[in-house]
Amino acid sequence: MSTTRKIAVVITARPSYSRVKTVLTAIKKHPELELQLIVAASALLDRYGSAVNYIEKDGFEIAAKVFNVLEGENLTAAAKTTGIGILELSTVFDNLRPDIVVTVADRFETMATAISASYMNIPLAHIQGGEVTGNIDEKVRHAITKLADYHFVASENARDRVIQLGENPAMVFNTGCPSIDIAKEILNTTSLTFNPYEKYGGVGSQPNLDNGYLVVMQHPVTNEYQDSRKHIEATLRAIQNSNKPTLWFWPNVDAGADGTSSGIRSFREQYKMENVHFFKNMDGNDFLSLLHNSLCLVGNSSVGIRECSYLGVPTVNIGSRQNRRDRGKNVLDVSYDENDIAAAINTILEKNSRETSQVYGGGDAGERIAKLLKELPLQFHKTITY
Amino acid sequence: MSTTRKIAVVITARPSYSRVKTVLTAIKKHPELELQLIVAASALLDRYGSAVNYIEKDGFEIAAKVFNVLEGENLTAAAKTTGIGILELSTVFDNLRPDIVVTVADRFETMATAISASYMNIPLAHIQGGEVTGNIDEKVRHAITKLADYHFVASENARDRVIQLGENPAMVFNTGCPSIDIAKEILNTTSLTFNPYEKYGGVGSQPNLDNGYLVVMQHPVTNEYQDSRKHIEATLRAIQNSNKPTLWFWPNVDAGADGTSSGIRSFREQYKMENVHFFKNMDGNDFLSLLHNSLCLVGNSSVGIRECSYLGVPTVNIGSRQNRRDRGKNVLDVSYDENDIAAAINTILEKNSRETSQVYGGGDAGERIAKLLKELPLQFHKTITY
Amino acid sequence: MSTTRKIAVVITARPSYSRVKTVLTAIKKHPELELQLIVAASALLDRYGSAVNYIEKDGFEIAAKVFNVLEGENLTAAAKTTGIGILELSTVFDNLRPDIVVTVADRFETMATAISASYMNIPLAHIQGGEVTGNIDEKVRHAITKLADYHFVASENARDRVIQLGENPAMVFNTGCPSIDIAKEILNTTSLTFNPYEKYGGVGSQPNLDNGYLVVMQHPVTNEYQDSRKHIEATLRAIQNSNKPTLWFWPNVDAGADGTSSGIRSFREQYKMENVHFFKNMDGNDFLSLLHNSLCLVGNSSVGIRECSYLGVPTVNIGSRQNRRDRGKNVLDVSYDENDIAAAINTILEKNSRETSQVYGGGDAGERIAKLLKELPLQFHKTITY
Amino acid sequence: MSTTRKIAVVITARPSYSRVKTVLTAIKKHPELELQLIVAASALLDRYGSAVNYIEKDGFEIAAKVFNVLEGENLTAAAKTTGIGILELSTVFDNLRPDIVVTVADRFETMATAISASYMNIPLAHIQGGEVTGNIDEKVRHAITKLADYHFVASENARDRVIQLGENPAMVFNTGCPSIDIAKEILNTTSLTFNPYEKYGGVGSQPNLDNGYLVVMQHPVTNEYQDSRKHIEATLRAIQNSNKPTLWFWPNVDAGADGTSSGIRSFREQYKMENVHFFKNMDGNDFLSLLHNSLCLVGNSSVGIRECSYLGVPTVNIGSRQNRRDRGKNVLDVSYDENDIAAAINTILEKNSRETSQVYGGGDAGERIAKLLKELPLQFHKTITY
Repeated sequence: MSTTRKIAVVITARPSYSRVKTVLTAIKKHPELELQLIVAASALLDRYGSAVNYIEKDGFEIAAKVFNVLEGENLTAAAKTTGIGILELSTVFDNLRPDIVVTVADRFETMATAISASYMNIPLAHIQGGEVTGNIDEKVRHAITKLADYHFVASENARDRVIQLGENPAMVFNTGCPSIDIAKEILNTTSLTFNPYEKYGGVGSQPNLDNGYLVVMQHPVTNEYQDSRKHIEATLRAIQNSNKPTLWFWPNVDAGADGTSSGIRSFREQYKMENVHFFKNMDGNDFLSLLHNSLCLVGNSSVGIRECSYLGVPTVNIGSRQNRRDRGKNVLDVSYDENDIAAAINTILEKNSRETSQVYGGGDAGERIAKLLKELPLQFHKTITY
Repeated sequence: MSTTRKIAVVITARPSYSRVKTVLTAIKKHPELELQLIVAASALLDRYGSAVNYIEKDGFEIAAKVFNVLEGENLTAAAKTTGIGILELSTVFDNLRPDIVVTVADRFETMATAISASYMNIPLAHIQGGEVTGNIDEKVRHAITKLADYHFVASENARDRVIQLGENPAMVFNTGCPSIDIAKEILNTTSLTFNPYEKYGGVGSQPNLDNGYLVVMQHPVTNEYQDSRKHIEATLRAIQNSNKPTLWFWPNVDAGADGTSSGIRSFREQYKMENVHFFKNMDGNDFLSLLHNSLCLVGNSSVGIRECSYLGVPTVNIGSRQNRRDRGKNVLDVSYDENDIAAAINTILEKNSRETSQVYGGGDAGERIAKLLKELPLQFHKTITY
Repeated sequence: MSTTRKIAVVITARPSYSRVKTVLTAIKKHPELELQLIVAASALLDRYGSAVNYIEKDGFEIAAKVFNVLEGENLTAAAKTTGIGILELSTVFDNLRPDIVVTVADRFETMATAISASYMNIPLAHIQGGEVTGNIDEKVRHAITKLADYHFVASENARDRVIQLGENPAMVFNTGCPSIDIAKEILNTTSLTFNPYEKYGGVGSQPNLDNGYLVVMQHPVTNEYQDSRKHIEATLRAIQNSNKPTLWFWPNVDAGADGTSSGIRSFREQYKMENVHFFKNMDGNDFLSLLHNSLCLVGNSSVGIRECSYLGVPTVNIGSRQNRRDRGKNVLDVSYDENDIAAAINTILEKNSRETSQVYGGGDAGERIAKLLKELPLQFHKTITY
Repeated sequence: MSTTRKIAVVITARPSYSRVKTVLTAIKKHPELELQLIVAASALLDRYGSAVNYIEKDGFEIAAKVFNVLEGENLTAAAKTTGIGILELSTVFDNLRPDIVVTVADRFETMATAISASYMNIPLAHIQGGEVTGNIDEKVRHAITKLADYHFVASENARDRVIQLGENPAMVFNTGCPSIDIAKEILNTTSLTFNPYEKYGGVGSQPNLDNGYLVVMQHPVTNEYQDSRKHIEATLRAIQNSNKPTLWFWPNVDAGADGTSSGIRSFREQYKMENVHFFKNMDGNDFLSLLHNSLCLVGNSSVGIRECSYLGVPTVNIGSRQNRRDRGKNVLDVSYDENDIAAAINTILEKNSRETSQVYGGGDAGERIAKLLKELPLQFHKTITY
């Protein structure tokens, strides 16, 4: 009798892949687990960085690809993308017959994974529940917690919150965040080992990086999507005026992505931005290495409060997207204001020091999660604890 | 400037309609509310009782009909039905532009309403959150709570639970259950005012009802759906052997419905069941009147613990479907065992007394909910309270 | 280098399976073909005879199951079923990567197979194009011809018609109808080798079959679906009054199926029908054997003009469903009129003789089609010939 | 009794809108017709020129918007887009209850309109059937002809072909192409009445247009989509080297659009293209005026063989996209070769003369079609003529 368990992991976006890469590796290595990797949504699309190419380059075999992004600059399309995701993923699960389905974080379309699995009585594991941000992501995240059977959370606060949501404490595990596993590998390196322009192409100027550089990554915020163009313009101006060498990463898909993207495109047509180079995507390790060697991160990516807290990379965190998430002392929070952003960058450059933190774990999350996926009882029936 | 609010209510099944009928009436009557009634899923289908016919007969105008039930005797179809529901309801909401969307209870496909509304930034009201049953319905119910902005709950326990789930207490209202509003009208009537055979047709024998009768309503249980045929057979034998005049109501759609339905069909081919008449559907008021005048209700319908507790109708509640829901003293819980069911029926018939309870409210839920729908601040942005 | 071709065949209904079974067998046996069998739509559903069970019992491995029947008694549901079919089959083709896709006949949902394959640049073979009936099936059939790259037609008239539709004659093959292949095996048998009641269950009386019996199979007609109940009632009364032993087969799914089904159910509740037994489904060979040994077929199934012409089984063909199809002398056409149907049955019973015909081929269609699927050039680019 | 007919017209792309604008105007003006305008697919999307904005600006009321473009650089997404289109349009038709549905031309997603209407027994009119091109569009176009009840074709050849496809000649009308109606208005104007840079923005250089300019519009070709980047690069180099003032229009959505789009983007990053300005979209009248005043059109747009033949604008038609369509003497056909393209441009510039033609009608198509939509018998039942 085989005791191998089939573990289906659904990756729907570039950042999710970076976040759980060490989990995928640990499942693949585990002698009693079989990885069924499903790549879906914007992770398949060129204009959001084709995470799928990195996944394949990293040697993961893909069990199924699911195209479900409905095009349109509005929230209706986001809802429908989720509906199509359910239609498609149900077929995929029906064919692959996984023992456990793993869903990651809180992007709107991850709800499709959670609904398909839980409605089909497949035990559902959720990575990164229990965090707080105050936007639509939060509704999604906590709703998924209520559908999930196992919870692999990234901090003690998150664990407390999931338990308070009525989940059985025996099924809630603070494994730390798997993204820290990769940061751990990077921590002891001392310089960039690759030329980002040569390795990743991209467009725009190619400023000299030898005396330090900024990194920018700013996504649209779902419930502010009509303002996404205005928000990105404040950052564009602040960076333009800073005149510091800057590596800018394209946003991932979301309602409003087109506001952010078109804001950038339009600004570039108007101004030269001699100090800025734009990338669509980058291998996760290279990206962390780039951050580790940077002067500071600017934007609203969760990498700023998560990996950067472990690495000690100073971060200018703009706007509401990371509200109320646990963070280390590396983070400076600012509003969508050109001057605030510029001032925060200056403060960091002047201070020129680093503080690290283990609030998101110690770097062994991937292996801990794989071990739990093998050992946990298979179950999909639960009740609230109160 | 008009201050009229457009309130979209989505009805997906016969029992949901019965449950919220007084809410619909109260919205329709309210001078500053406009009702946008959407009828979807099994509420449109003949083999689940065509609730839509009763809705139209009751004088409600239907703003949109949504066919989304994917046929198939399995859980995959239930998941896909939800996906199709999201696709369709998003279009409907996009056309109707409601100010608030109202979703009812916890059937799997109601998740489609909750996702479409919350992803489209339309304030979402949830009727009947916070209850506990321990099956897939419970996952759905609490997940919807995490997506909803306003909570109209049916009991004090439910209110406490929703608040403990991290919802803002100012948005959680114990209005009582609207189903009690109808029971209130029935309470003071003293005999059946219609002949059920003549008014509703149906099939099977037509036992004399003058000396009392049983009512049976038993639905398949989602996470036990492979056993649904065995479960219904225990009830069929118990009723067959009781030899009491019995009015039996067809189950509503669910994964497993076909097990229940085919079990009944097959039993009828084999045995005469001289004491049983079968109905597909009945107007809500007539159904309550029928219960009010019956000896006892047998099955697993929530009407047994809800309306029947207010009316004091003795109820033999079979199996796990109503587990942990608040209940009055009218309920006798039994397992899926022919002998247990028979014994419970006998106990009730011998005891021959009634006990009423207001655990699910006092009969003014519809009007209280309509008032709140007009007065509550329009908002779709929330964060967990802890 | 492997020269094996992967041939995906999509079966969407019980009758389609019976029709192409010998094609499946021939593909499976062919050393250089790999069969990818996809079972979809009503072929998966219990209430339409679960063709899938027969497929599995016959030893075919199923590569993918596609649930896409949207429930509802209307044409909108038929359209949507087709849309869902496209969504699902595109994923299936994307995973299976067939060299050729084969679609059968003209049911509304087969359009989904044709669109998915042709839009994905997969060469498309169509079995049974070029026939004429005058209903929505005909629109579907000829539209599929315009999407298909290879045409395996069942008669010379059909071949002429497909060529006149502008198809390259070099790609149009009169292989005969594969259903005749099975009839050929049956032709030389002399009596029923099984007891249909024991082997297939079913419901209703069990009339003695020793002195001959009728077989009835009547489907709703798409563009007359609002009349389907009235139509089936004429046949029910004619059969009831004939008082001949009768074996009646349940209709397959279509807009209007519920009118036909509910008409039968309701008639049975009202009348005893002592002479009639009802079956849901039957293995294709057994069904043909049953026909071969019957007095006459009544209804509107294509089996009456196709297999029965080869076998010489007299057929009362009711209504418009088989209009203008090629037919042998075994067929008596009548309207939806109780008296006409009764008179035609009497004429046949009195005449008591048989005439056979090879208008639909000589019984080697399966092998001819498999050979062509291996030898034809792979191409999906075509242009009209005029 | 009202005799007003409701005419639903579905517009799925920018070029379709330009083509049928005079039909919409004529329906709107007709006292006994009610226009139900449905805007869908890429006609709603910013990156394909938001035809919807022009539609609204032109004063047409939109009855429903349908978002159905599934994102992805492949043919699977095109198939699925069609499937989603059927799901959505069926709901729309169910709500709007049109008397006739009108579908335009042959883009892959127009099949969704044809299937929804014909499956729902709504009479279907097809504008621009019977033409020949030899690509997937041709499969789609002729398949739609087999689903349609009325045919409004644009040339005598097209009429002959539709009749040869087995359609009833009494239902096939050579109305001419409605796009010529607009060209007729433009024909007698003598100079550009607007500044395209000021009115339409766009990106790139702003070459002086006073001494003549080229216009480029090149779309990817569905069944060559993997070559779309190579194809566009040949054109880009030819135009770059010509050094003539050029106005370049962005391609509309298709499988492969991203190859074309990214080819253009990448070329622009590499070379300055001082002589080229890029536009996303333009009002149809302004676009025709621009063409009328240009030296020549380059690319593969049907406007080159259609409107330009009426106007006499010389056209360099590249590759297979317009193969076998009727054309006037204004067209020079060339392959996807940089040198061929350059040579053809030179030939035209040297020759400097114009030849007009009425092969696509005389400019009254819109009014003729509106009249027919009012007068034709309402019918959805047809049979092939042979």
